[in-house]
Amino acid sequence: MILGIVGLGLMGGSFALAVRQHCNFSKIVGLDHNLSHTNEALELKLVDEIITFEEITQCDVIVLAIPICAIINTLQQLALLPLRENVTIIDFGSTKEEIIQKCPINLRHKLVASHPMAGTEYSGPKAAIRDLYDGKIMVVCDVEETNKYQLNVAFDIYKQLNMQIKIMYAAEHDRHAAFISHMPHIVSYSLANAVLKQEDNEHIVALAAGGFKSMARLAKSNPKMWEEIFWSNEENLLDAIEAFIQELKKAKKLIKKQKRKKLYKWMQKGNKLHKILK
Amino acid sequence: MILGIVGLGLMGGSFALAVRQHCNFSKIVGLDHNLSHTNEALELKLVDEIITFEEITQCDVIVLAIPICAIINTLQQLALLPLRENVTIIDFGSTKEEIIQKCPINLRHKLVASHPMAGTEYSGPKAAIRDLYDGKIMVVCDVEETNKYQLNVAFDIYKQLNMQIKIMYAAEHDRHAAFISHMPHIVSYSLANAVLKQEDNEHIVALAAGGFKSMARLAKSNPKMWEEIFWSNEENLLDAIEAFIQELKKAKKLIKKQKRKKLYKWMQKGNKLHKILK
Repeated sequence: MILGIVGLGLMGGSFALAVRQHCNFSKIVGLDHNLSHTNEALELKLVDEIITFEEITQCDVIVLAIPICAIINTLQQLALLPLRENVTIIDFGSTKEEIIQKCPINLRHKLVASHPMAGTEYSGPKAAIRDLYDGKIMVVCDVEETNKYQLNVAFDIYKQLNMQIKIMYAAEHDRHAAFISHMPHIVSYSLANAVLKQEDNEHIVALAAGGFKSMARLAKSNPKMWEEIFWSNEENLLDAIEAFIQELKKAKKLIKKQKRKKLYKWMQKGNKLHKILK
Repeated sequence: MILGIVGLGLMGGSFALAVRQHCNFSKIVGLDHNLSHTNEALELKLVDEIITFEEITQCDVIVLAIPICAIINTLQQLALLPLRENVTIIDFGSTKEEIIQKCPINLRHKLVASHPMAGTEYSGPKAAIRDLYDGKIMVVCDVEETNKYQLNVAFDIYKQLNMQIKIMYAAEHDRHAAFISHMPHIVSYSLANAVLKQEDNEHIVALAAGGFKSMARLAKSNPKMWEEIFWSNEENLLDAIEAFIQELKKAKKLIKKQKRKKLYKWMQKGNKLHKILK
């Protein structure tokens, strides 16, 4: 079996490293529209070979580890190629509804719409790490529209990578992702910008310790990649931002009105998150 | 020289461990109003001895590693005791203006008003770690009101602990701390509460990966300790929350109105924080 990875950045590169360690593919090939990425991927031995887009027809499994718009475009192009009869196509898009809706009908039953709940704030082949997927959750959406064969191929790989598979509807995934990932990115960017806007921002930032750094970490993320995610999940994202603003306004009001007991209870409630967060 | 530590939790306990390794005190003694803390502190060998409050008169250096209100009360009580002539009193309060204002006048020149920019979301003696202070910043405020002798004693300890000393006015410190620490805590609690309020919160949280966890970490913090900090820095905190809300509202508006280029630039701006954040 030949594995082809489209996009050799953090996600694709880490997937290549993990698959090489844990799975039995005869060859791992890849491509990336960024030439320095392909060179780096070869140097770092993420893939055995760089191929052209047309040469992807040799692959048994194709992983699309690229931004959402690129996934949608690539699926259109794949639909025109003489792919292997039993090819398994996996996409790692961070939102799922738009990709599934726009997937060409002749590929839909071969597409395993997946979202690995893993990542770092870094990008590119050099950011790839072997254990990025280890022990993490892989969400797979709208599985009833995918052939059993392709689901089995994908699930086998995920299990070999020690991932925990969670099946859900794309709509449900996108709403949850807005709360767990997309809105927190907006919050982190907001924190960064609020501090940067202060006249003495360098003095303020000089005092930063671990707490601030962990809150500001997501504001390092690549705007190109994240704006696509935001635009692909706009309504859920706005709902999540609104839910967050409500809590923030509540806290602000309690502080302004010196409602000490109520603020204390509000903080205690927040503590409870960690009872369900593993 | 005898060191006395009032409060044997994360901050006091870690200080004891570090001082034992790096400084030359003949004895480290301590006290804590919480009996299980004193027992744990002895078991963990954080201190050589547990003393009564009156026995603190034997100490050459007294460190107050307790919440803000307790620092203010303890300073009042210390003012009534026959302390050593050259005693150095250090407080680790997270806000500085209120403590300095309320310090009894006969102790003010012996007080080194300090704030270590270090911590974790955990508390109690068991949370103490030897390298908590290593390489971190120690802010020292309004030094012109403190005797040279006491400043030297404190600075020597901080340097032996490999800390970087930053001198600033209390008012400046409190404003910076609101941005770098207090407001981010309110943000993290808000995030936790916004997610908890969703009907399917357990399903949402099940998808949490590193990004969400780093944003939610501060919401683990002890409400008792943090409400004191918030109430001691109310105005600065409200200003910082307001500055943050402005950025968040801006992002929300840009998303709602589909201002793609402007949202992209706003995110790029946020990225710049990491150029000044070490």
